[in-house]
Amino acid sequence: MTESPAGVAFADPQYRAAVVDLLGVIAYGELSAFERLAEDAKLAPTLEDKVALQAMASAEFGHLARLRDRLAELGADPFAAMAPFQKPIDDFHEHTAPSSWLEGLVKAYVGDGLARDFYREIAAMLDVETRDLILTSLDSTAHSEFVVEHVRRAIRDDHRVGGRLALWGRRLMGEALSQAQRVAAERDALSALLAGTVDRPGMDLAALGRMFNRLTERHAERMTELGLSA
Amino acid sequence: MTESPAGVAFADPQYRAAVVDLLGVIAYGELSAFERLAEDAKLAPTLEDKVALQAMASAEFGHLARLRDRLAELGADPFAAMAPFQKPIDDFHEHTAPSSWLEGLVKAYVGDGLARDFYREIAAMLDVETRDLILTSLDSTAHSEFVVEHVRRAIRDDHRVGGRLALWGRRLMGEALSQAQRVAAERDALSALLAGTVDRPGMDLAALGRMFNRLTERHAERMTELGLSA
Repeated sequence: MTESPAGVAFADPQYRAAVVDLLGVIAYGELSAFERLAEDAKLAPTLEDKVALQAMASAEFGHLARLRDRLAELGADPFAAMAPFQKPIDDFHEHTAPSSWLEGLVKAYVGDGLARDFYREIAAMLDVETRDLILTSLDSTAHSEFVVEHVRRAIRDDHRVGGRLALWGRRLMGEALSQAQRVAAERDALSALLAGTVDRPGMDLAALGRMFNRLTERHAERMTELGLSA
Repeated sequence: MTESPAGVAFADPQYRAAVVDLLGVIAYGELSAFERLAEDAKLAPTLEDKVALQAMASAEFGHLARLRDRLAELGADPFAAMAPFQKPIDDFHEHTAPSSWLEGLVKAYVGDGLARDFYREIAAMLDVETRDLILTSLDSTAHSEFVVEHVRRAIRDDHRVGGRLALWGRRLMGEALSQAQRVAAERDALSALLAGTVDRPGMDLAALGRMFNRLTERHAERMTELGLSA
């Protein structure tokens, strides 16, 4: 591995620590998404919907398995790498427990989309191998259609649903930002990756601001896609 | 398909109905096993155990997906095929809701083992394609070690655990038999497959008795494997 460009990057212990953190947080996010989707599957109104939700959960596990294997390859304990993110991610889910099947669907779509955009932004700053792994782990296009179709149909059937779900979408965004800040404050290596260090250029405040704008815009696009105002 | 030996068998509408029933009950069993394993994963004491349980659940979904595709190939609606078995299987799970992580593990091992043995007995009477599909769907050897190791360790740590879990194993067996009888009474095509019809030889009473003995013996072997008396 030391000959590859990734090998050179990993010679920097702070870079390696940041990547282990990043793979750890994404892995725990997938584990947690599996739990939520399995929970949503139980609420699903039809057998067909149950099967669709179980398919999504299993896809998350497929990603988790790859991240776990990569962490082990890097010489890290995958479970120790996930552990620091258990509390903030569990808290996010506890504060945003869906009270209905539709809220669960919106959360899966909007919450996962937001996480995906954020990790993609970070992945752009990383070595090719890590970037590819992260981009593959975040792919879930196949399931978006299912959610969009169900939510749009529910709004068509009852307009009041749209207003309630729009509020729900804003709450998800707020809660996600608050937990992300907490993680950034606690995980030095990850924050240093974003902000840069003496040896490695990161984002300045203007660049961070632009990233935040991009995330907000894409969130708004997703809400529109669902037929909801952002 | 009509040229294959399976095609000939499927020309008999009662045979086809029995196979659709059988694939339907196994598929719903997998869907339901996914739900239980996902539930058990939430109770898991460590992240490593959680990941192991999510892996088992995802494997069940992989089988379910193949059964669903095969049902569609046979021109059956997979969800309609599963529907008649939802109630008896849900009832089984409701009557055997584990009250602890260990009870969940024993149930996964003993319950799935029993179902697997039973479906294997039936599969032996079917066309090659259906038999192969069923045997593949029931393969879960990779996960058995995990359960055996955890249960044996728990008994080693506290001997009283063994007595309680042995009772639990007997309850699982009794409940499984009672639901199986209910299914046999309601699904004519399936029962005819076992008992035979004018055109197709099935099992006589003596053969059914021998099958029942084999199932009981293998159940006892699994209990012994776990370190429990049957």
